[in-house]
Amino acid sequence: MTYDPSNIFAKILRGEIPAHKVFEDDTALVMMDLFPQSRGHTLVIPKSASRNLLDADPAALSAVMPLLQRVARALKAATGADGMRLAQFNEAPAGQTVFHLHFHLIPVYEGKALAPHAGGKADDAELAELAKAIAAHL
Amino acid sequence: MTYDPSNIFAKILRGEIPAHKVFEDDTALVMMDLFPQSRGHTLVIPKSASRNLLDADPAALSAVMPLLQRVARALKAATGADGMRLAQFNEAPAGQTVFHLHFHLIPVYEGKALAPHAGGKADDAELAELAKAIAAHL
Repeated sequence: MTYDPSNIFAKILRGEIPAHKVFEDDTALVMMDLFPQSRGHTLVIPKSASRNLLDADPAALSAVMPLLQRVARALKAATGADGMRLAQFNEAPAGQTVFHLHFHLIPVYEGKALAPHAGGKADDAELAELAKAIAAHL
Repeated sequence: MTYDPSNIFAKILRGEIPAHKVFEDDTALVMMDLFPQSRGHTLVIPKSASRNLLDADPAALSAVMPLLQRVARALKAATGADGMRLAQFNEAPAGQTVFHLHFHLIPVYEGKALAPHAGGKADDAELAELAKAIAAHL
């Protein structure tokens, strides 16, 4: 299992494809998931090249955790979610569809089931607005 | 939302309740989930008191990530799983049932659906054997 730099997140990190960005620094990019499982579904993507958790640089993993927390808090504040799921998939049988390490932060709303992973595409205007609202709470 | 030290994981950390331990050091405990979603479902529990990701000490979060990776690799080696899910739930609407921060590592086997969260209790002898097998790969 090796890293293929032609994956879509690597293209976004290189600026070749646009994204609804929430936050970016030298180590990570935070953006809206285009196929959200709930309103506000956000991805945190470490910039260093790794396929998933199994082959990641441990230092990069340590560095991203406080950011995951900051984004989870901002996301909760921006959306008013009742709960939050953190999920990360390793290899296709586990649900991984893009082979660059990324973490899902999925807001959960009381009494509302999550949509299936990679179901319908969200409205771009709504994603742009959500990205702005979450960034304002970061 | 405050931390209640009478939760079951705090009791396990204090040694008041037994567990199928895989690994333990000053910062974290790794043990088998009693209600596994798949064979080898493992929990990684930081020792510092926090309810979940939202209120955790960022330094404790950073410290646990390399351990999550080590356990994921050992778990894959011990079980022969085809993939691995990392999941962490915040608050009851998101599926959190024990209010002490913990991370799920859930092996996924090709063509085999995951059991529901907190479904049937696993056999203790099987859990003890799995804990030993995973520890041997750490």
